[in-house]
Amino acid sequence: MTEETWSRPSGRKADELRPIKITRHYTKYAEGSVLIEVGGTKVICTASVEEKVPGWLKDQGKGWVTAEYGMLPRATGTRTDREAAKGKQSGRTQEIQRLIGRSLRAVVDMEALGERMIKIDCDVTQADGGTRCASITGAYVALADAVNWLIKNGSLEKSPLKGQVAALSVGIYEGVPVADFDYDEDHLSDTDMNVVMTDAGKFVELQGTAEGEPFSREDLDALLKLAEDGLKQLFAAQRAALAEE
Amino acid sequence: MTEETWSRPSGRKADELRPIKITRHYTKYAEGSVLIEVGGTKVICTASVEEKVPGWLKDQGKGWVTAEYGMLPRATGTRTDREAAKGKQSGRTQEIQRLIGRSLRAVVDMEALGERMIKIDCDVTQADGGTRCASITGAYVALADAVNWLIKNGSLEKSPLKGQVAALSVGIYEGVPVADFDYDEDHLSDTDMNVVMTDAGKFVELQGTAEGEPFSREDLDALLKLAEDGLKQLFAAQRAALAEE
Amino acid sequence: MTEETWSRPSGRKADELRPIKITRHYTKYAEGSVLIEVGGTKVICTASVEEKVPGWLKDQGKGWVTAEYGMLPRATGTRTDREAAKGKQSGRTQEIQRLIGRSLRAVVDMEALGERMIKIDCDVTQADGGTRCASITGAYVALADAVNWLIKNGSLEKSPLKGQVAALSVGIYEGVPVADFDYDEDHLSDTDMNVVMTDAGKFVELQGTAEGEPFSREDLDALLKLAEDGLKQLFAAQRAALAEE
Amino acid sequence: MTEETWSRPSGRKADELRPIKITRHYTKYAEGSVLIEVGGTKVICTASVEEKVPGWLKDQGKGWVTAEYGMLPRATGTRTDREAAKGKQSGRTQEIQRLIGRSLRAVVDMEALGERMIKIDCDVTQADGGTRCASITGAYVALADAVNWLIKNGSLEKSPLKGQVAALSVGIYEGVPVADFDYDEDHLSDTDMNVVMTDAGKFVELQGTAEGEPFSREDLDALLKLAEDGLKQLFAAQRAALAEE
Amino acid sequence: MTEETWSRPSGRKADELRPIKITRHYTKYAEGSVLIEVGGTKVICTASVEEKVPGWLKDQGKGWVTAEYGMLPRATGTRTDREAAKGKQSGRTQEIQRLIGRSLRAVVDMEALGERMIKIDCDVTQADGGTRCASITGAYVALADAVNWLIKNGSLEKSPLKGQVAALSVGIYEGVPVADFDYDEDHLSDTDMNVVMTDAGKFVELQGTAEGEPFSREDLDALLKLAEDGLKQLFAAQRAALAEE
Amino acid sequence: MTEETWSRPSGRKADELRPIKITRHYTKYAEGSVLIEVGGTKVICTASVEEKVPGWLKDQGKGWVTAEYGMLPRATGTRTDREAAKGKQSGRTQEIQRLIGRSLRAVVDMEALGERMIKIDCDVTQADGGTRCASITGAYVALADAVNWLIKNGSLEKSPLKGQVAALSVGIYEGVPVADFDYDEDHLSDTDMNVVMTDAGKFVELQGTAEGEPFSREDLDALLKLAEDGLKQLFAAQRAALAEE
Repeated sequence: MTEETWSRPSGRKADELRPIKITRHYTKYAEGSVLIEVGGTKVICTASVEEKVPGWLKDQGKGWVTAEYGMLPRATGTRTDREAAKGKQSGRTQEIQRLIGRSLRAVVDMEALGERMIKIDCDVTQADGGTRCASITGAYVALADAVNWLIKNGSLEKSPLKGQVAALSVGIYEGVPVADFDYDEDHLSDTDMNVVMTDAGKFVELQGTAEGEPFSREDLDALLKLAEDGLKQLFAAQRAALAEE
Repeated sequence: MTEETWSRPSGRKADELRPIKITRHYTKYAEGSVLIEVGGTKVICTASVEEKVPGWLKDQGKGWVTAEYGMLPRATGTRTDREAAKGKQSGRTQEIQRLIGRSLRAVVDMEALGERMIKIDCDVTQADGGTRCASITGAYVALADAVNWLIKNGSLEKSPLKGQVAALSVGIYEGVPVADFDYDEDHLSDTDMNVVMTDAGKFVELQGTAEGEPFSREDLDALLKLAEDGLKQLFAAQRAALAEE
Repeated sequence: MTEETWSRPSGRKADELRPIKITRHYTKYAEGSVLIEVGGTKVICTASVEEKVPGWLKDQGKGWVTAEYGMLPRATGTRTDREAAKGKQSGRTQEIQRLIGRSLRAVVDMEALGERMIKIDCDVTQADGGTRCASITGAYVALADAVNWLIKNGSLEKSPLKGQVAALSVGIYEGVPVADFDYDEDHLSDTDMNVVMTDAGKFVELQGTAEGEPFSREDLDALLKLAEDGLKQLFAAQRAALAEE
Repeated sequence: MTEETWSRPSGRKADELRPIKITRHYTKYAEGSVLIEVGGTKVICTASVEEKVPGWLKDQGKGWVTAEYGMLPRATGTRTDREAAKGKQSGRTQEIQRLIGRSLRAVVDMEALGERMIKIDCDVTQADGGTRCASITGAYVALADAVNWLIKNGSLEKSPLKGQVAALSVGIYEGVPVADFDYDEDHLSDTDMNVVMTDAGKFVELQGTAEGEPFSREDLDALLKLAEDGLKQLFAAQRAALAEE
Repeated sequence: MTEETWSRPSGRKADELRPIKITRHYTKYAEGSVLIEVGGTKVICTASVEEKVPGWLKDQGKGWVTAEYGMLPRATGTRTDREAAKGKQSGRTQEIQRLIGRSLRAVVDMEALGERMIKIDCDVTQADGGTRCASITGAYVALADAVNWLIKNGSLEKSPLKGQVAALSVGIYEGVPVADFDYDEDHLSDTDMNVVMTDAGKFVELQGTAEGEPFSREDLDALLKLAEDGLKQLFAAQRAALAEE
Repeated sequence: MTEETWSRPSGRKADELRPIKITRHYTKYAEGSVLIEVGGTKVICTASVEEKVPGWLKDQGKGWVTAEYGMLPRATGTRTDREAAKGKQSGRTQEIQRLIGRSLRAVVDMEALGERMIKIDCDVTQADGGTRCASITGAYVALADAVNWLIKNGSLEKSPLKGQVAALSVGIYEGVPVADFDYDEDHLSDTDMNVVMTDAGKFVELQGTAEGEPFSREDLDALLKLAEDGLKQLFAAQRAALAEE
C-alpha cells in the first residue's frame, strides 16, 4: 500500500489525536467532576470521597482508590441493554473498571491519602472508540479535583498524588500503526493496544490484543512510540484543565 | 404562619417553576436525544427505534413504547450505589420507569405507530428533585424526534402522536401548596404529588403521597390547580424546543 | 349510553361494593393475622413484630412498619410464574408493596411504637381485581391486632395508631365512574384509581392511571366522591371486625 | 424409659396421626385446588394444566408433571425471609419441590397423559411439621381433580393415574418410633424419615435422616411398619375426599 | 430372566463394587486433601479448617462441619453448563451438598471439635455414577486428615470423630438388586438408593427413589443387605488409606 | 543490589522456568483433556466440541472458540469462596477467561473450523502463581487434541490451527526482571506481565501491570526478551506432549 492511497477512515494522520476537551466541575455534587470529550467519545468522570476504607484495609493508615464504569444504553450506535436491568455487569465492564482503578492507584501514595476512599465513576454518554482510555485520562483530573477539595477543607495538608496518569489507544490499521483509534478504525483493525503511562514516561498498564493477525516486535515498538508521543499531548491537556480556576 | 414570614427554601414564589431548558440532538446516535434541565435536575432522554415488538404483541399490527430509568451514582449529594454493580434495580427505579412508559403510551396511537418499538432511556446526571417529572417532560420531546426521524426516512407517513404529555410535581411545604419541588423542599415536606397531563388538559397519571400528614380534599384541589397552571408552561417549553431547527 | 342499556359486568350498581369479609386470627403464629375477602379476591395479611429496627433507624427511639406482597402462582386465571423461582420480584410487586408500607406508616406514630419493627406480609391466594386495595384494608386490621398483642404483653402502654387506613379502587367503565373494580371490569377499562384514605377523610395515597383515554377533572371529582363514600363502608367493616372478641 | 413416663409432646399415642382434612375446589381458577390440613399444618395445593411440554420432551407423545413449593413468610413461628425478596429459593425448598415432583410422577402414565404438563404448586400457609408430606398427600388430590377436569372437557378419555400416592413422616422420639411428627417433636428428635408410598403398598421415596444419633436396622423396621399403617389412613382420606361431589 | 442371560452393563457381579482408590495429600494447601476414585468416578475432596463458626453458633463452645459440591463442566459425557457462569447452583447440587454435610456431621462430636468450622469441598473431575456417595466416602478421609492436622499442631488433644462414615449406592437393575451403580446402570434403572452408614453399622441417611416402578419391601430388604456388605469394604478402604504414612 | 545477595524466593535463576509437565487424555469424556503442571500450579484444561455456533454467528460458515475459567475453592492457600455458591463470577475470573478465549482464537482459522464451537474449560486444582498463563499453554494442547478428534472422526480434513500459542508471566522482582513468577514472587512484586505469543514469535496478547512502581521502557524490553526466550521452551513442551501417542 502506498502512502498516497492509504488513509484513515477519520482522515487523520497516523499520529494525529482527536480533539480533546476537558470540562471541570461538570456536575455539582461530586468532589471531583469532569466531562472529557475525545472526538465523539464523551465520558462523565466523578470522584467521590468517602471517609472510610474497605474492611480488608481497616486500621492500616492507608487509603484506597477504586473505580466503576458504565455506558448509557444509547451511548452506542445500536442500543445496548442496560446492565442494571440485566442484573449484571458484563465481563468487558468489569475488565475496564478494574483497569481504571489500577491505573489511578499507580499515582496515589495511599499512606499520604490516609484512611479514606476515593470512588471514581466513569459513565460514557457517547461512545466513539477509546472509552476506557478517555475514562482514565478524565478520571485523573476528577481525582486531582477531589484531592484539591480535601486540601481546601483541611483534611489533607498536601497532595498524595505522585504524578499524572493518562491513557491512549494505538493500533494497526491496514498495516500502518496509528494513534487514537475511533470506533470505525477499531472495528476494521486486528491489533489494538491501550497504553497507560505516567507523565514521567513510565508504564502503568500495557494491554495489547490481536484478535486477528498477531503483531511483531517491530509493530510493538512503533505502537509504543506513537503512544509515548500522543500521551504527552494528553498530559498537557490535563495540566491545562487543572490550571484554570 | 403569615405570608410575610413563610418562604420556600429556594426563594421561589409558591407557583413559580424552576427554569427549564431543553436541548435536542444532545447525543449523536439516538433517533431522539434530549437533555432536559429543570433547575439543578438534569436528565438525558433518548428514544431508540427498534423494528420489532415484544413477543406478546407480535402480528397484531401494533407498536409499543417502553422506558428505562437510571441515575449516575454521583447524580446525588452522597454517592448512590450503582444498580448494575448491585445486580438489581431498586423498587423506586422500577416504579419510575413504569410510570414513564405508561405516561408516554397515553399519547401514542399504537396502530398508527405500526409494528415497531420505541425504547426510552432516561438517565439522570444530576438530581435536584423532580427527576421523574423531568424525565417524562424530556422524554416526550425525544419521542417526538424519533417520530420525526421515522417520518423523514419514510417509515411513517404521519405522526402517531395524539398530543403532548408532560409532568410536574407539586406538594405542600409548611402548609402551603407549591409547584415544582426541588430536593430541599421535597425532603422537608410530607405531601408530594406527581401530575402527568396531556396538553388537552386531561390527566394521564396522578400520584399523590403523604408519608407524613395526610392531605385534605382542599389541599388536593389547590395542588391540582398549581399543576394545571404549571404544566401549561412545560407544554410551551416542549413546543418551543420542537419548533427549532 | 342510556342508563337502561349500561350495566357492569358484575351486575353491580355504579357505587356498589363487593361483599367484604374480614377474618381475624387466621393463622396461628403471627401477632396479627387476617384473611380479607373482597368478592373473589382473597388476601392473607400477617403482621410480625420484631424487636429491632433497620440499621439506618438505630438509636433514634423510633419504630418502623414495612410490607411485602406476593401472589400464589395460581391465584390468577392462568398460572403466573413464581417470583422466588424466577429469582426476582416484578416491578408491579415492588410497586405494590411499597404502596402498602407507605399507607400503613401514615397512621402510625413511630415514636409511640418505639424501637421495633412491624413487618406486614400480604399474600394473595385468589385474585379477582383490587388486590392492592384489599391488602391495605386487611393489613390495617392485622397491624391493629399486632398492636393489641404488644399492649396485652406489656410492651406498649397505649396504641401508636393515629387512625384507620383503608383503600378502594374506583374507575371509569364504559364512560361511567364506578366503585370497586373486579378483574373483568379492570380489564375492560382505561382509567383506574386507587384511593388510600384515613377514617378522618384525608388522603394518604392517590394513584390514578389512564393507560388508554386520559381522564378529565370532572371524571376525577366523580371518582373521588365514589371513593370517599365507599371507603366509609370499609372503615365500618374494619371496626366491626376489630370489635369482635 | 417406661411406658408410663414416656409421652409425646402432642399427647398422641406412638402410632396416632394428627387429624387430616382435605378441602377440594379451594380456590376458583386452578384445574385442581386443594387445602390440606394435617393438625396445625396447612398447605394449598393447586394443579395447573398447560397444553405444552418442556423443550426436552417435545414431540415424544408424553406429558410431564412438575412441582414447586413455597411457604408464606409467617407460616412459621418466627418470620422467615421471603424467597422472592431474597432472589433465590433455598436448598431446602428445592429439595422439597423436587421430591414432590418425583413422587407424583411415579403414579402417572406419561404417555396416557399426552403432550401436556401439569404444574403442581404447594404453598404452606401454616407450618407445624410435616409440610413436605402434607404437600404430597394434598397434591395427589389436586392432580386427580386436574385429571377429572381433562376428562370432563374431553381432552382425555381415561385417567393416566396408575394409583394413589401419599406421604407420611415417622421418626424416633426419645428412643420410641412414632408416626406423624409435628414441629415440636421434629425439633426434639434426631431421626426423621419421610416415606412416600403408593396405595399398592410400594415405596416411591424413602428419606431417612439422622443428624444426631444414627439409627439401627431395628429402628428402621419399626419406622417402616408405622409408616405403612399410617399411610393406609391417608389413602382412605384421599379416597373419601375424591368421592364427594 | 434367568441367571444365565442377565448381566450388568459393567459385567460385574450383582454384589461386586468397582475398584476404589483413595489418594491422601492430593493437593498441597488444604488441611485434608483426598482424591477418591471409584471406577471411573473421580472426586477431589478437601477439608479446610477455619477458626470461626457461623453467626448462629457463636459462643456456644461448639464447632460445625459443612460441605459444598461441584462438577467440572466436562466431568460428564456431554458438557454441563458451569454453575458459576449461570449464576446459581442447581437443585441437584444443593441437595447433594446438604447430604454430604449432614453425613459428616453425624460422626463429629461438635463440642469436642470446639469453636471452629471444617469446610468440605467435593469437586468431581470425572463422573461415572455415584458421585455423591464417592464424595462422602472420600470426604470422611479428608476430614480425618484435617483432624490429624489439628491434633498435630496442638489445637486439639484428641479426635472429635465418633466413627467412620461412608456411602454406597445400590439399585435394581432389570429386576435384580445390585451394588454400586455406574452411570450406564443408573440410567437404565428405576430404583436407586443411597445408603450412608457408620462403621458401627448404623444408618445416617437412607435415600431411596423410584422415578419409574415403585419398589417393594422385599426389594428394600435386599438392597439394604447389599449396602451393608458393600459398605464394609469401603470402611476397610478408608482405614487402609488412613493407616499409610 | 549485587548479584551475590539478590536471589529469588524460589531459588531459581532470573530466566529459569519452573518444571512443566503436560498430561494428555487426563479425563475420559472430553474431546481434548489435559492436565498441565507448572511448578506447583495445576490446571485441568478440557476442550469440548459442539456442533453448533452462538446465535450471532449462525449461517456464516464459521466456527468459534470460547473459554471458561474456574478455581477449586481450596486451590489456594486460604479457601476462596465458591463462585457458584456466591452466584457470580468475579471480575478477575471473567478477565482471565476472556483472555484465554482471545488467545486461542488467534491461532484458529474459523472458516476452516466450520460451523462448530470448541469450548475450553480451565479449572485450577492447585494455584501457585501463573494460572492464566498455564491455562493458555495447556488449553492449546487440549484444543489440538479436539482438532485431532475431529480429523480422526472425519468431521475435518485438515487442521484449522495456524500455529501454536502459549503464555508466560514475567515480572520485576526486587528490581530484577525474572521469568515465570510463582505465587510468592508475584506477591512481593509490583510489575507483572503476561505475554501470549505464537510459535512464529508474534504477540497475541501483552498485559503488563504495575500496581506499585511504574516500569520503564528498558524494563519492558528486558521483560519481553525473557518472555520470548522462555516461551520457546513452552512451545517445545507442547510439541513434545503432542508427539506422544
